[in-house]
Amino acid sequence: MKPRDTPKLHTHLGILDVSALVGGEYGAMVTTTLGDSLVILKPTIEDLVMKMARKTQVVYPKDLGLMMVKLGVHSGSRVIETGTGTGATTALMAHLVQPTGMVYTYDIRPDFQEAAVKSIERLGLSSWVTFRSGDAREGFTDRGMDAGVLDVGDPWEVVRSMKEALKPAAAMAAITPTTNQAEKLVAKMADEGFVAIETVELLLRHIEARVGMTRPSGVMVGHTAYLTFGRKTSGP
Amino acid sequence: MKPRDTPKLHTHLGILDVSALVGGEYGAMVTTTLGDSLVILKPTIEDLVMKMARKTQVVYPKDLGLMMVKLGVHSGSRVIETGTGTGATTALMAHLVQPTGMVYTYDIRPDFQEAAVKSIERLGLSSWVTFRSGDAREGFTDRGMDAGVLDVGDPWEVVRSMKEALKPAAAMAAITPTTNQAEKLVAKMADEGFVAIETVELLLRHIEARVGMTRPSGVMVGHTAYLTFGRKTSGP
Amino acid sequence: MKPRDTPKLHTHLGILDVSALVGGEYGAMVTTTLGDSLVILKPTIEDLVMKMARKTQVVYPKDLGLMMVKLGVHSGSRVIETGTGTGATTALMAHLVQPTGMVYTYDIRPDFQEAAVKSIERLGLSSWVTFRSGDAREGFTDRGMDAGVLDVGDPWEVVRSMKEALKPAAAMAAITPTTNQAEKLVAKMADEGFVAIETVELLLRHIEARVGMTRPSGVMVGHTAYLTFGRKTSGP
Amino acid sequence: MKPRDTPKLHTHLGILDVSALVGGEYGAMVTTTLGDSLVILKPTIEDLVMKMARKTQVVYPKDLGLMMVKLGVHSGSRVIETGTGTGATTALMAHLVQPTGMVYTYDIRPDFQEAAVKSIERLGLSSWVTFRSGDAREGFTDRGMDAGVLDVGDPWEVVRSMKEALKPAAAMAAITPTTNQAEKLVAKMADEGFVAIETVELLLRHIEARVGMTRPSGVMVGHTAYLTFGRKTSGP
Repeated sequence: MKPRDTPKLHTHLGILDVSALVGGEYGAMVTTTLGDSLVILKPTIEDLVMKMARKTQVVYPKDLGLMMVKLGVHSGSRVIETGTGTGATTALMAHLVQPTGMVYTYDIRPDFQEAAVKSIERLGLSSWVTFRSGDAREGFTDRGMDAGVLDVGDPWEVVRSMKEALKPAAAMAAITPTTNQAEKLVAKMADEGFVAIETVELLLRHIEARVGMTRPSGVMVGHTAYLTFGRKTSGP
Repeated sequence: MKPRDTPKLHTHLGILDVSALVGGEYGAMVTTTLGDSLVILKPTIEDLVMKMARKTQVVYPKDLGLMMVKLGVHSGSRVIETGTGTGATTALMAHLVQPTGMVYTYDIRPDFQEAAVKSIERLGLSSWVTFRSGDAREGFTDRGMDAGVLDVGDPWEVVRSMKEALKPAAAMAAITPTTNQAEKLVAKMADEGFVAIETVELLLRHIEARVGMTRPSGVMVGHTAYLTFGRKTSGP
Repeated sequence: MKPRDTPKLHTHLGILDVSALVGGEYGAMVTTTLGDSLVILKPTIEDLVMKMARKTQVVYPKDLGLMMVKLGVHSGSRVIETGTGTGATTALMAHLVQPTGMVYTYDIRPDFQEAAVKSIERLGLSSWVTFRSGDAREGFTDRGMDAGVLDVGDPWEVVRSMKEALKPAAAMAAITPTTNQAEKLVAKMADEGFVAIETVELLLRHIEARVGMTRPSGVMVGHTAYLTFGRKTSGP
Repeated sequence: MKPRDTPKLHTHLGILDVSALVGGEYGAMVTTTLGDSLVILKPTIEDLVMKMARKTQVVYPKDLGLMMVKLGVHSGSRVIETGTGTGATTALMAHLVQPTGMVYTYDIRPDFQEAAVKSIERLGLSSWVTFRSGDAREGFTDRGMDAGVLDVGDPWEVVRSMKEALKPAAAMAAITPTTNQAEKLVAKMADEGFVAIETVELLLRHIEARVGMTRPSGVMVGHTAYLTFGRKTSGP
């Protein structure tokens, strides 16, 4: 954001004088020109990831969270991923592997990766992301990975490459919107010797918890993606 | 586990000579006395957490995953938690905050915490866990926390203590099995000035992805817990 | 609908000359002025009920269907209901009990019932509906009912009236949007000697079944209402 | 059941002297030899259908209820069905179409139909069921049906037969356990000119509604079947 003389944030609740906030504390309450109150919050990694994900809207915090637990991604992890997409999953994983790990992210579409490079830079996470261009179906150049994520339209075509890139017994996760993709993927993973293969979906429901009148929200997201997990073995 | 002369693992698939595995590689396939094949996998943090959680069976990877994303727990985070319980949530968070962060875990029941201390030691995570005994309703002794987790029967009684312990704008999460608890908690959080309060539940469904005959599994877990999230503000 | 000289139906797909359809067959395809094709279908009882329900949008076919099976409503059934509301549930039940049964529907708000009377008339179902005004909490005037439906804000206040109106062992169903209502209702039903009490919720998910790319719809209804069922006993 | 000198019902709660119940009223409470109380209830159509369905366990009241509402099955309806299976769906529909309607049920497996014939007889519903043997893929012999139900492994092979049997604009429903079946079925229905085609699934969750501690049940049925609906048109 280029500095302007008098930075103002225009919202549907009125205008906010941003310059007056500099040096202030997170969690503070400020008043807009229309007299509404706003609270200044530091964006969480969830906020940042959700903002990046807007274009494709496939990966949600619920899905990312389960993937991170099942893959065991944490400080020091070396993780491989394709495709980069908007970089939302990349950003979350970079956030988790710092300060000593690395996310190797491949994409066949350089135009998508350009936007992701900028987003990751803006988040200050570039030190933990290595961008690589190329067709993952023909193999990754990285080896000995602790975990891997597939988020492409034809993940079954990348299972062999993933197997070569992973450490023995390492876990992979794949994100597929359709049952047909999950079907083909699971068959290919079994062929390549992956075990503990499971496909799941997560449904998140908001609850309106109010004293004496608690009920689930009337509208919910019905589907984001199926998540398939598996562990690499040495055979067959 | 104490070393024995001839360590054998008895399973329903036959007996496995464990001594023959020493020095072997993860992902390798071994054969039992009954001729069945087993694959040797390194336990993931999910495996370890699920094994610890067995007694209470409330917190599941799906819930923990979403909590970690929403709380932004990662390397270096300082996190506060009560109760310790079996230590399953503690272990996952310790795994994520290493090598420079810390999990401060409080429990009013020392007998529960003893088991958790041993579990955390066995997992080699003790360096990132500080166990504290005491009644969280009367206040935590730690301050400036990046995030907090409440997993007690009366979380509304601990909201004020949590507020005092958290950094400005930091996020908290609470785990409650019943709608009534979520109701009381949300009201108290609003009273204490928390914002961005939301309560959700996650339903995980297994999918039997098989070529030409894909269907969801016939049985699923219908409920684990409601998750409530919020951000601390300076007011009121 | 008043007859007009040249009845035309204006839709977002173009204008349809309705007069040309008179005497035609259901299932026929017609062409609009914009060249789009429309199929002429006879409205089902579901279409009619959903159109009536629009104002309140609480009771859905999924809920009504389960209720009708659990209450066993069919030809000849004598069913009692409060409140009448838009008459959507009334209409479905009238449809099912003809030609020898009767739906007795009570409402404390005459303005709501006026609209329902007209709707039921328009559907030609008036012979199977008896409208009664009055406060159900003070008792129903009908007795020996085969089944009963409660769709009011305070169903627990009407449980005793319902018990008096039902035949021995007859089933009742109640529709409540909140968990708090279900809680109070179930306690009262147990107090009044109802057995086989159960509360359920139904989640309906649309599936986009398309060759090679099948997936659930992205948006779904997250909540309509909790349904509580029970059977009357002679005690306590 | 053959009459015995002293009919006793042995349950896990003790023995019940059935002869003492003859002439008693439904809803009455009786005491077993072990001192436990039982309530005598008249079986509902749901109880009967669920008991019949035990062998195959695919069709549940939630699914049947939605189907009946969407098909508009009621007194006087003429409904066609294949396969007969255990006769559970048949029984529910016969219950609904009496006294002037008819259910025409086809099955290619006479052994299944024999059991269904006996079940329907025992329920006193034989007057409203016409059993027909034969391969529905080669056509139904009945015409002008108000509604139709397909519950076979290859429903797409029967769509043309169904179209011929239905009245113009009449609705059909099909029950398929897998997404692959739903996919093929929907494509075939579109080919045969059916409109308003939709596939849904219903998830039923039990709620433990208890004062101050309400929560969903921990275990639920994760999948019964996908339901596909459509309306016949004259084209193509």
